[in-house]
Amino acid sequence: MTPYLIGIDGGGTSCRAAVAGPDGRLLGRGKSGAANILTDPETALQNIADAARAAFVDADLDPEDIAAACAIVGVAGHNVGDAVHYVKRRLPFAEADIESDGLIALQGALGDKDGAVAILGTGTIYIARRGKSVSYIGGWGFTIGDHGSGARIGHALLQESLLAYDGIHSASPLTDSVLAEFNNDPRDVVDFARLAKPGEFGRYAPRVFDFAGRGDPVALRLLKAAATTVDEALDAVIARGAQTICLLGGLASLYRPWLAERHRPLFSEAEADALTGAVALAAKRFGARPEVVA
Amino acid sequence: MTPYLIGIDGGGTSCRAAVAGPDGRLLGRGKSGAANILTDPETALQNIADAARAAFVDADLDPEDIAAACAIVGVAGHNVGDAVHYVKRRLPFAEADIESDGLIALQGALGDKDGAVAILGTGTIYIARRGKSVSYIGGWGFTIGDHGSGARIGHALLQESLLAYDGIHSASPLTDSVLAEFNNDPRDVVDFARLAKPGEFGRYAPRVFDFAGRGDPVALRLLKAAATTVDEALDAVIARGAQTICLLGGLASLYRPWLAERHRPLFSEAEADALTGAVALAAKRFGARPEVVA
Repeated sequence: MTPYLIGIDGGGTSCRAAVAGPDGRLLGRGKSGAANILTDPETALQNIADAARAAFVDADLDPEDIAAACAIVGVAGHNVGDAVHYVKRRLPFAEADIESDGLIALQGALGDKDGAVAILGTGTIYIARRGKSVSYIGGWGFTIGDHGSGARIGHALLQESLLAYDGIHSASPLTDSVLAEFNNDPRDVVDFARLAKPGEFGRYAPRVFDFAGRGDPVALRLLKAAATTVDEALDAVIARGAQTICLLGGLASLYRPWLAERHRPLFSEAEADALTGAVALAAKRFGARPEVVA
Repeated sequence: MTPYLIGIDGGGTSCRAAVAGPDGRLLGRGKSGAANILTDPETALQNIADAARAAFVDADLDPEDIAAACAIVGVAGHNVGDAVHYVKRRLPFAEADIESDGLIALQGALGDKDGAVAILGTGTIYIARRGKSVSYIGGWGFTIGDHGSGARIGHALLQESLLAYDGIHSASPLTDSVLAEFNNDPRDVVDFARLAKPGEFGRYAPRVFDFAGRGDPVALRLLKAAATTVDEALDAVIARGAQTICLLGGLASLYRPWLAERHRPLFSEAEADALTGAVALAAKRFGARPEVVA
């Protein structure tokens, strides 16, 4: 039987899968719901299997054959040991490895070349590869890291709105718009912030880019501070030898014009997406092994 | 019977009480355990009563007479409506009002004079009084406010230690000391931060002042940033007319040399503590009322 390869890109809102032949050539794609192995491993397992089956159907293959396939599953939160072990043992594939969503994104963006990716979304993380060595920078999460992330920008905006309310910092159309949304009552802002998840803070980030583009002084200050954190992290990435950097994530295109001139010559477009990266990693890891090909 | 007055200063670690005659003259003091009306109202009620009874015993009065006394209860979190109503109805006194811990601190520090207090502790809040008008600035809590607080300084230090670990910012003896405490494993810092309460972050704040005094460059940067947030809030307090400012709270004396020159002429020592302020407020509110004196 054919040793199909599966790549999985599991995220907090959806799970995507691709199936490829043993040579890594893509045959079909599928999609399902959220796959967060940390907060809900059972649902993640179900959605990983569903997405894989959908990819097989898309490729005119028997979805039951996922059980004979080899997979690379890219997930957020892969560093959280127990959840990884629990999920890995229960994956419905012949063989599988779980990798970080960052690593599959790097593989997709750079192929086999050296370089780095800066993932700028609700969180931020930087991953650099030089030969066989892969190093991670940042990505410690909203509470104590993820500087420059959408969540941190949104959080900073809500803070700034309270400082404007108190007359400690100047108000602007941007802070006025936030306070108006909270009935001009700072306690409503506090109540929201106390329970908000990173993604909920992150929903305010595009507004900061938007207002900054129109010259709002508070937006400009917040965005310059955020861009500085990204530039500082890029300096650290470059210090580790990266000559090429792909900006990925939901804020990548918004950030690009705000980043330092010194970094621009290094920016390059991603070759392919994270799902393609997962398939490529599966081809590397499982494609040439005799016991799989047999 | 004598209309005794009670002042209560209820905090997250202990509850203090004082009893005074109708003229406001202090007769005795007492102390008990934590009185956080928001997180544990039943225990708070018990400890408020215990502290009041202890103050009566200290004054050689019958502790059962607290039931005929009038009290001002100063508590943190007094703005959280439901908890205040619940506790107020159940207080073991003839009459009582619940006020913020900030207001009793202001009354203690300034007496009846105009001016402001800056409470610089695990959190930060600024309270200004001008005639009958009292205004609050800041104090929105760790998640979205309390700039310059011990909790925010400690949080910033942990963040800075991760930035140093990643080579994004320079390390220093201060960040080295923090990382060493967490086995030089950034995941241990993240695990701590994910669950830490403001007071747990705040325990790192004195170390920042300590290292700054010895010239540690990271400590100096963090402390200057924190002091700037305090100076900016003091500017807002002064803009509301305050000519006198008392610095209160556990970080007050540590902060003083780091605050802007422009503010120093306004600093004055507190006349008395928050408990004395609570008694004074009780004397104002209940001391002269005929139905009480009768």
